[in-house]
Amino acid sequence: MTKHYNVAVVGATGAVGSKMMEHLIKRNFPIKSIKFLASARSAGKPIEFNGQTYTIEEATPESFEGIDIALFSAGGSVSAALAPEAAKRGAVVIDNTSHFRMDPEVPLVVPEVNRHVLKTIPKGIIANPNCSTIQMVAALQPIREKFGLTKVVVSTYQAVSGSGIAAIEELKIQSTQWEKGKDVEASILPAKSDKKHYPIARNVIPQIDKFTDNGYTFEEMKMINETKKIMGLPGLHVAATCVRVPVVSGHSESVYIELEKEATIEDIFASLKEAPGIVLQDDIRAQEYPMPIYAEGEDPIFVGRIRRDLDNPKGFHMWIVADNLLKGAALNSIQIAEAMIEDDLL
Amino acid sequence: MTKHYNVAVVGATGAVGSKMMEHLIKRNFPIKSIKFLASARSAGKPIEFNGQTYTIEEATPESFEGIDIALFSAGGSVSAALAPEAAKRGAVVIDNTSHFRMDPEVPLVVPEVNRHVLKTIPKGIIANPNCSTIQMVAALQPIREKFGLTKVVVSTYQAVSGSGIAAIEELKIQSTQWEKGKDVEASILPAKSDKKHYPIARNVIPQIDKFTDNGYTFEEMKMINETKKIMGLPGLHVAATCVRVPVVSGHSESVYIELEKEATIEDIFASLKEAPGIVLQDDIRAQEYPMPIYAEGEDPIFVGRIRRDLDNPKGFHMWIVADNLLKGAALNSIQIAEAMIEDDLL
Repeated sequence: MTKHYNVAVVGATGAVGSKMMEHLIKRNFPIKSIKFLASARSAGKPIEFNGQTYTIEEATPESFEGIDIALFSAGGSVSAALAPEAAKRGAVVIDNTSHFRMDPEVPLVVPEVNRHVLKTIPKGIIANPNCSTIQMVAALQPIREKFGLTKVVVSTYQAVSGSGIAAIEELKIQSTQWEKGKDVEASILPAKSDKKHYPIARNVIPQIDKFTDNGYTFEEMKMINETKKIMGLPGLHVAATCVRVPVVSGHSESVYIELEKEATIEDIFASLKEAPGIVLQDDIRAQEYPMPIYAEGEDPIFVGRIRRDLDNPKGFHMWIVADNLLKGAALNSIQIAEAMIEDDLL
Repeated sequence: MTKHYNVAVVGATGAVGSKMMEHLIKRNFPIKSIKFLASARSAGKPIEFNGQTYTIEEATPESFEGIDIALFSAGGSVSAALAPEAAKRGAVVIDNTSHFRMDPEVPLVVPEVNRHVLKTIPKGIIANPNCSTIQMVAALQPIREKFGLTKVVVSTYQAVSGSGIAAIEELKIQSTQWEKGKDVEASILPAKSDKKHYPIARNVIPQIDKFTDNGYTFEEMKMINETKKIMGLPGLHVAATCVRVPVVSGHSESVYIELEKEATIEDIFASLKEAPGIVLQDDIRAQEYPMPIYAEGEDPIFVGRIRRDLDNPKGFHMWIVADNLLKGAALNSIQIAEAMIEDDLL
């Protein structure tokens, strides 16, 4: 890895963008040059990166001249407008928004699951999947490889940081209001652009993103559709119920799966133990299982509470936790770029 | 209902006991006399009930002489020792602990589901089911009556009040510690008598009660076994993953069910609309769905987020919320007594 790259980060000041910057440094990503792009509103502001001060530039089509890798996390409309412009100028775009994810010409990638699809990037754009989906498919892939997979039913326990920095602030403010006996005010969750807002402190909200016409939310449909696409299993049965909980960072998931072949609990343990990016945290005698406060800031996906279904010998239950801003977003985006470098695709 | 009853409340100072007292008054329960029993430690202390001051008495076998209805919620060992003594003296015991629940000679009752079993009480003891189980079976019963039920997979989002008053205090203290940047200390959750304790503020803990040998917790096995017993469906497939969340009161459940017969979403709505004790709260256009902060202090079970499974025409997903101290405990116990009075069994 002697080659170094010209990198652009679009949306560096957001919850995910700032984690991208942190992990580009932490992982010693081979950077030749880096620039930080944002809307006209943020342009001109200073931004610190690896001990140096940069100036945020306004993102325009021309900003991407000479860029090798463009990391987008500034919202769907920015990606829609500028990702094709970046790609047109020769950059490989890794887009963290949902805008291109279901485009059949855009690979949707979790390196542990489907890095092989990175060989063909028709539009020059790669999509980083939804946070809840990434941790689930990465944990299910090693099991699926050995025993096949026919059905997935997931209920999520998602952290507020998935809704951005403002949602983290809202949880903090509401907690203080609640403790002081004041009225709790809500203006962000469950979805900033939706009509009603509900408190998240001391509450759980069974709505993430807005509703689609079929009664599922967009978040639930993302988990359903993206899982099938990433795993390359269009016929897989997937159902999701997505719920916001008063946790700062770290999404948790209660997952029920049905396999093609029978497996023992030891088989499942063995396949997860050797899996890349996975930490098996399952020792009930020692009360060891994944929890979001301990996953925050950590790279791996933690899996535990693995149990065979009591009625279906091909059924298993498990509990999957990961930092939604890291493996669920920033880290996975960087790992996509690293996989391309390793595989001589960049 | 002109007959009035001599009532004993065992464990009146606990989280459930105090709600029992509140709702005996609120529901105008036909009380001739009432006494409050506890361990020797609490005996002699004053206790307020309906504007009068009573003195807590030490619970002994003789305390139950002349008692018609004994409401127990002072822990399994107290019930084990004293419920048979109360029954021997002619009281009908309604026990809120898990001690007698799976005894084949003890009816386990949610009045909306199986009040008919109250006709035969071989030991003079009736068990009040686990809080998470009550709200689930009451919501599933009207659907099961019309379309049959073959499978239930539930993931819970359980409030800390299910672990008693000390757990509510712990959540409050931890929240303050967290906001002040102090170390967060844990000594109650996930299970006071277990070895390790974890913070619940800003966290979710996938352990409620201790673990059994099969990898499931006692709470999960309660949901599995009690659901089959209450619904009278020993062959029903039931699986549960029970998780504690930082909510004060109100258990939420993400439930996936499979029916015997196909049903439409309108069929499911119709059966829940007319069901006793259920409030259908399902209007996604108005962002109406159940949430624990709005269920706290309310009698009904709230059901929403009802969706047909996208792959299985006999599969449905729903979200069930109820106040775990009320319908999940104190209220259901009182409703059992009311059902017996109505059915001329007491």
